[in-house]
Amino acid sequence: MSNAFATIRWEDDADGHLVVLDQTRLPGETVYLECRTVEDVWQAIKRLSVRGAPAIGVAAAYGVCVGVNEGRDVNEVCDYLATSRPTAVNLFWALERMRRVAEGSPTTGTVLPARPQPPILEVLLAEARAIDAEDRESCRAMARFGADLLDDLPVGAGILTHCNAGALVSGSGGGTALGVIFELARRGKRPRVFVDETRPLLQGARLTMWELMQRGVEAMLICDSVAAQVMREGRVQAVVTGADRIAANGDTANKIGTYGVAIVARAHQIPFYVAAPATTFDLSISSGADIPIEQRAAEEITHGFGKPTAPAGAAVYNPAFDVTPAELIAAIITDRGVVRPVNADTIRATVAL
Amino acid sequence: MSNAFATIRWEDDADGHLVVLDQTRLPGETVYLECRTVEDVWQAIKRLSVRGAPAIGVAAAYGVCVGVNEGRDVNEVCDYLATSRPTAVNLFWALERMRRVAEGSPTTGTVLPARPQPPILEVLLAEARAIDAEDRESCRAMARFGADLLDDLPVGAGILTHCNAGALVSGSGGGTALGVIFELARRGKRPRVFVDETRPLLQGARLTMWELMQRGVEAMLICDSVAAQVMREGRVQAVVTGADRIAANGDTANKIGTYGVAIVARAHQIPFYVAAPATTFDLSISSGADIPIEQRAAEEITHGFGKPTAPAGAAVYNPAFDVTPAELIAAIITDRGVVRPVNADTIRATVAL
Repeated sequence: MSNAFATIRWEDDADGHLVVLDQTRLPGETVYLECRTVEDVWQAIKRLSVRGAPAIGVAAAYGVCVGVNEGRDVNEVCDYLATSRPTAVNLFWALERMRRVAEGSPTTGTVLPARPQPPILEVLLAEARAIDAEDRESCRAMARFGADLLDDLPVGAGILTHCNAGALVSGSGGGTALGVIFELARRGKRPRVFVDETRPLLQGARLTMWELMQRGVEAMLICDSVAAQVMREGRVQAVVTGADRIAANGDTANKIGTYGVAIVARAHQIPFYVAAPATTFDLSISSGADIPIEQRAAEEITHGFGKPTAPAGAAVYNPAFDVTPAELIAAIITDRGVVRPVNADTIRATVAL
Repeated sequence: MSNAFATIRWEDDADGHLVVLDQTRLPGETVYLECRTVEDVWQAIKRLSVRGAPAIGVAAAYGVCVGVNEGRDVNEVCDYLATSRPTAVNLFWALERMRRVAEGSPTTGTVLPARPQPPILEVLLAEARAIDAEDRESCRAMARFGADLLDDLPVGAGILTHCNAGALVSGSGGGTALGVIFELARRGKRPRVFVDETRPLLQGARLTMWELMQRGVEAMLICDSVAAQVMREGRVQAVVTGADRIAANGDTANKIGTYGVAIVARAHQIPFYVAAPATTFDLSISSGADIPIEQRAAEEITHGFGKPTAPAGAAVYNPAFDVTPAELIAAIITDRGVVRPVNADTIRATVAL
């Protein structure tokens, strides 16, 4: 599943730097950000130019290469990039891989020269490219496992999704939840996708609609609050979303609003599926209660569209994520197979190394 | 409960005309629209300058006076105003009252002169003022009944509301759902109100936050998709919303998203209450399946903030209302007492004339 656009790519010029598609400008403008410093990479993640758990991991891995290219210490760069966002575990997983590779390199432990010697940069770049390639392959695997799981759906079935879990959440792969939907479309299932606009930052309206329309998949944009209504109308046969971090018991952190979608899906006896690679699981935490939830600025809600939409001084609660308890999740589609039913045992059996 | 602003008022100058607060401009600007023709009134209702079931009824009643003042036929004016919006039954109820009063007037049945004789205008204006005054009194009654019903809530309890059902939905009264909350505040209960922003037109963010902040009631703005999360956090002890039309069995049409809120409230064992006057009940329809649901323009979702937020040509589903089934409603707070449990018998016993 190849993309019409490159979400993240390493530019192999003399300096070597990271180029990311600025998702905050989509769908109106297709703008690429050139990240030549670690600060550029940190900002691109923090400000959601790059977003979605797998993509954050890939961007962070290349970000380490950017930092080493600047002559900075690997561990210091990793520590810094780890502060960009707290919830998606792929960020920490990717940085940990980069740290381990650096430790295994002959230059580690010695004082780094102002410009690093080629060997360590090459080793790090190879690792970042490996993470990128593995993610691409992982998207393919999820798409296949997910489409097999949903094979019983009739042609033209309605699938509801929340936020964006498409090619834009992967460095160069087809995505998680949307990857499954694209594979269903490729198999002739003609899915009809209901797309929650996903307040406050409208990743559904801006990004998911854009990806689906680009690929010719039938898509209908709805406000988040309409999900229950289209389910009541009998137009939704399955829900598929991505994930930002999954605890050992299957509790799943994902974009704020996912939990409510899971509750209304259950109320209408509609299966709720999560699609996420093994790298999104955090087996070190036993339940969702231990997942840190990022709080974001009030302005995302009160000034999100260029003009104030609430009285000045309004108090606002703006968590970026919520946690859907495992018991509301019919199955988790991973790159190593489908976890069903969702519990600590089935998860360990599928995704533990 | 008096208001710091007049939502709807009749201006008793030489011409006599209707003045409405333009709610589409709030909270940024306080602009009053002078409605000197029936077309002005129709537009004010259609474009949501006046909105909320009771206020639509009051505005339509005065609108008939505007039309007669223009020298137009009462029935023709009523037919025309009835086409402004389809869901709120108060519109049709108020117009029917105006028609009946006109029929009882000596001038009815004769060809109206270019300028109507004073008697019929005076009779119609008296009726519109009666509708306005009854609505104001009805708000007071709902506030008392509702605050009595919620008397067991601890001081500082969290109450979630959706859309706007405050003084702005009444000609000159304190509102329906917010009226109850204001009365709880007056009684020293210090409610903490969670306000759904209410996409697409943000009546919660723009109007409910404004009303609560004006009156010093603690209010927290959230995206619609956060309602389930604040409930999960244990911060909500009750939900109160208004209604646009209630069927004989208690099925309740209200702003899109209300149904989803009712489902997530049930999932957290939080009581879901509706506050609405007897005039919002439509005993002529047996269930919510017969309530016509207004479909509104795609641009409300894709261009609601002055710039496009979805790809050009995106397909959109934008129902203005949904129907919450009676079984999800713990009680309906009316101006004639509390309906509990909610079923055809208790409703008939409380609100049938």
